[in-house]
Amino acid sequence: MKYDLVPFTRLVEHFERLPGIGKKSAQRLAFHILGLPDETVNDFADSLVDAKKKIRYCKICKNLTDGEICEICSDGSRDDSTVCVVENAKDALSIERSGEYKGKYHVLHGLISPMDGIGPDSLYIKDLVLRAGNGNIKEVIMATNPTVEGEATALYIAKLLKPLGIKVTRLAYGIPVGGHLEYADNITLYRAIEGRSEI
Amino acid sequence: MKYDLVPFTRLVEHFERLPGIGKKSAQRLAFHILGLPDETVNDFADSLVDAKKKIRYCKICKNLTDGEICEICSDGSRDDSTVCVVENAKDALSIERSGEYKGKYHVLHGLISPMDGIGPDSLYIKDLVLRAGNGNIKEVIMATNPTVEGEATALYIAKLLKPLGIKVTRLAYGIPVGGHLEYADNITLYRAIEGRSEI
Repeated sequence: MKYDLVPFTRLVEHFERLPGIGKKSAQRLAFHILGLPDETVNDFADSLVDAKKKIRYCKICKNLTDGEICEICSDGSRDDSTVCVVENAKDALSIERSGEYKGKYHVLHGLISPMDGIGPDSLYIKDLVLRAGNGNIKEVIMATNPTVEGEATALYIAKLLKPLGIKVTRLAYGIPVGGHLEYADNITLYRAIEGRSEI
Repeated sequence: MKYDLVPFTRLVEHFERLPGIGKKSAQRLAFHILGLPDETVNDFADSLVDAKKKIRYCKICKNLTDGEICEICSDGSRDDSTVCVVENAKDALSIERSGEYKGKYHVLHGLISPMDGIGPDSLYIKDLVLRAGNGNIKEVIMATNPTVEGEATALYIAKLLKPLGIKVTRLAYGIPVGGHLEYADNITLYRAIEGRSEI
């Protein structure tokens, strides 16, 4: 473009850098912002800075919190003896949304991936082992994604925890509820047969 | 959700209010923000406030500018005698991107729509008539969208400008380049036949 409206282009570029937002969407969002009342835009800007500033990792489980200890860790009514290990805070939120799980969490903030230079030391694995060592944790549920990295990370952690006498389990594999057999891939089907249960 | 991370929820809500962004996307964007460096987030926040504060309407054509007069209006090399009337700044940008048009613009910031309570006085129509009255404008190209409101607005403006001896034209209707006849709707086809040209 020959004509450049600097403040506008800058805003478009920021939107464009967000995941899943292309050039056209970024422009649409920027035009939308210009049409909003001043207070709304100021509050949006403030919420960005505020979230980034206030939100940190819980001292115990490394989940997101705006305090020292997250609400789940400080909730006495939840089962202390079960810890669900997830890749990131998003996954913890998904499990929490199901409403089924009443134990605690441990967020790794990544998966072991030697190809990307991410070793066990770049993740919060040591913290989990320490937590398991001096707590009353009886079971650790590995809820990493069923990818190569997710599997490798789960096995690695299982090997560290088993000597401590902790039961390590894995989320069930199988056909998604409402899914169709014909659309399931071979490995999923294989795992579903392997993990069959009596009715 | 039982647990509420206030700064996070607030950020998610702001993203959710943007057009085309649902609850899940908003959450994904908020998580993405938390993973960005502090400076990037601060700069994003600043670009929001900055764009909203600095960008206003050009005194002449009502297009967006960060000065008094926009770059297109102050560009002496562009044809002063032709003005292209568009619904909003987005449309002006689209026409500008085609690279074909060398005249000036006039942005209405809306279309006449009695159903929504938008009459001619809520738009920048008076400014266009004034501009046409004391300038050297010879032709006004109506480039409003081919909707009921776009058509009505174009006709309304044409009626005001014709007595001033100004030629009022309309963008051509027809089959989009690369489009297929079988997918064109009846009205578009009718207009394409009506507007046929010799080859």
